[in-house]
Amino acid sequence: MRARVFVTLKPGVLDPQGRAIASALVHDGFAEVRSARVGKLIEVELDERDAGRARQRLTEMCEKLLANTVIERYDIELG
Amino acid sequence: MRARVFVTLKPGVLDPQGRAIASALVHDGFAEVRSARVGKLIEVELDERDAGRARQRLTEMCEKLLANTVIERYDIELG
Repeated sequence: MRARVFVTLKPGVLDPQGRAIASALVHDGFAEVRSARVGKLIEVELDERDAGRARQRLTEMCEKLLANTVIERYDIELG
Repeated sequence: MRARVFVTLKPGVLDPQGRAIASALVHDGFAEVRSARVGKLIEVELDERDAGRARQRLTEMCEKLLANTVIERYDIELG
């Protein structure tokens, strides 16, 4: 089974990388850009056929290793 | 308008960060992990109401600044 895990900064957490990207875009002629925030996309290939079990295990992976839950949130997308 | 831009390595391009994550997961008790690949998620807030125009401009942003199209591909998701 394949899964996509999105790890993004929680609202309110400063994102200097996102600000740099937004600023670079505006200065490069994309004046319509209001803001940008950067996160991680982790594509995981799992040896697991049960969707419920896969989601449970991926949640454990996020809590233990993939996300810093103090400042980041995560979303899991199966399939 | 809000958009999500996914920037991922093209198939065949080595991903040491993804390999490190997969290896760390396996060694942390997640033996069902076969592989992992890491990409970027860029959330962009745009001052543009027309979806077609937004997609066109985001494509330009990806080609010019957000993605290295030699080794990366990108996907744009509006809404």
